[in-house]
Amino acid sequence: MAAWGERLAGVSGVLLDISGVLYDGGEGGGAAIAGSVEAVARLKRSRLKVRFCTNESQKSRADLVGLLRWLGFDVSEGEVTAPAPAACLILKQRGLRPHLLVHDGVRSEFDQIDTSNPNCVVIADAGEGFSYQNMNKAFQVLMELENPVLFSLGKGRYYKETSGLMLDVGPYMKALEYACGIEAEVVGKPSPEFFKSALQEMGVEAHEAQRRAPPGSQG
Amino acid sequence: MAAWGERLAGVSGVLLDISGVLYDGGEGGGAAIAGSVEAVARLKRSRLKVRFCTNESQKSRADLVGLLRWLGFDVSEGEVTAPAPAACLILKQRGLRPHLLVHDGVRSEFDQIDTSNPNCVVIADAGEGFSYQNMNKAFQVLMELENPVLFSLGKGRYYKETSGLMLDVGPYMKALEYACGIEAEVVGKPSPEFFKSALQEMGVEAHEAQRRAPPGSQG
Repeated sequence: MAAWGERLAGVSGVLLDISGVLYDGGEGGGAAIAGSVEAVARLKRSRLKVRFCTNESQKSRADLVGLLRWLGFDVSEGEVTAPAPAACLILKQRGLRPHLLVHDGVRSEFDQIDTSNPNCVVIADAGEGFSYQNMNKAFQVLMELENPVLFSLGKGRYYKETSGLMLDVGPYMKALEYACGIEAEVVGKPSPEFFKSALQEMGVEAHEAQRRAPPGSQG
Repeated sequence: MAAWGERLAGVSGVLLDISGVLYDGGEGGGAAIAGSVEAVARLKRSRLKVRFCTNESQKSRADLVGLLRWLGFDVSEGEVTAPAPAACLILKQRGLRPHLLVHDGVRSEFDQIDTSNPNCVVIADAGEGFSYQNMNKAFQVLMELENPVLFSLGKGRYYKETSGLMLDVGPYMKALEYACGIEAEVVGKPSPEFFKSALQEMGVEAHEAQRRAPPGSQG
């Protein structure tokens, strides 16, 4: 492996994924991946700008940052780009009122959003919340709209927990797309807009950035 | 509308859909669609062969026929082509042992099928059975197989009940297809094999058959 200096020539910022890169989720919150706490600390001491870019949609940024700090990471809420706040921005810009099919842990991110008389649907990794009843309700809301708009916070197929593989939001996005004959708007990775907003928040141009994610991941 | 004789020239058999054609499902079992009891009786008095071809996968054929007879239809179990028995035939022919994600009402159709140590997954319109936990289990079974095989009893998007639109099996088939990166084998309409087996059971060639279904339906 080349030395840092050589590998980072021309790079002025680093966008770090969180889950599966900095820590692995699991019982009791999860565990830091070996070396990652030190790597983040070293990056922060360097001349490089650092930002965290996640598709985590089960937890609010506050809860996620609380967990990361507890695991030893130097990170604050303002340094994290996550799909729920990005979705809130889009909803406000377009005057949309969502029906939410999301995990209770992330619901607080939508506190400032009007959810009355919904004219779109937002789905996220809802875990057990993906019951038939909840999916059918989201489906019915979409079918009652003249122009059904579905936002999906990420489109991951599955993720790994200590208990095994878990279905992510992507399969449920596909289910609603097929049921309604529509295409969802993905908010989060791998949407280019999402990466761009993370870079913008970091104050770095795309060509100056280095993304760090495991090979083959959507990170 | 042309007279029966003219419309049926060259036709020697009639394949009838059931749900939405002969009766509408709903509370208390549902209700016969006006004129359909008499139409079936008239067909049966004619020179035409008659067979019933359904994608119903929440009920066993015995329960379905019981309901239809209660509604006044002249129909017996042996006259019904349904996806669950068709799937059982395929499972036996190919030596497959399914993990079943199906409605309790249709489980009896699989009584003679070995479901130990599954090497494929069969999904049907499971209704409330499409919980996150059940979907995740089906997903995990597929991911543990070297060659994941998924059968879907039909691929309907949704159907109408008196309480409103209900998600059918199709969206859940799409979810598992996307999660596992596979393509399901559809048993039931609109699979040509399914229609062919119905015709075979009726003793009619395809060109001699007339299908009767509402315009635009998958029936």
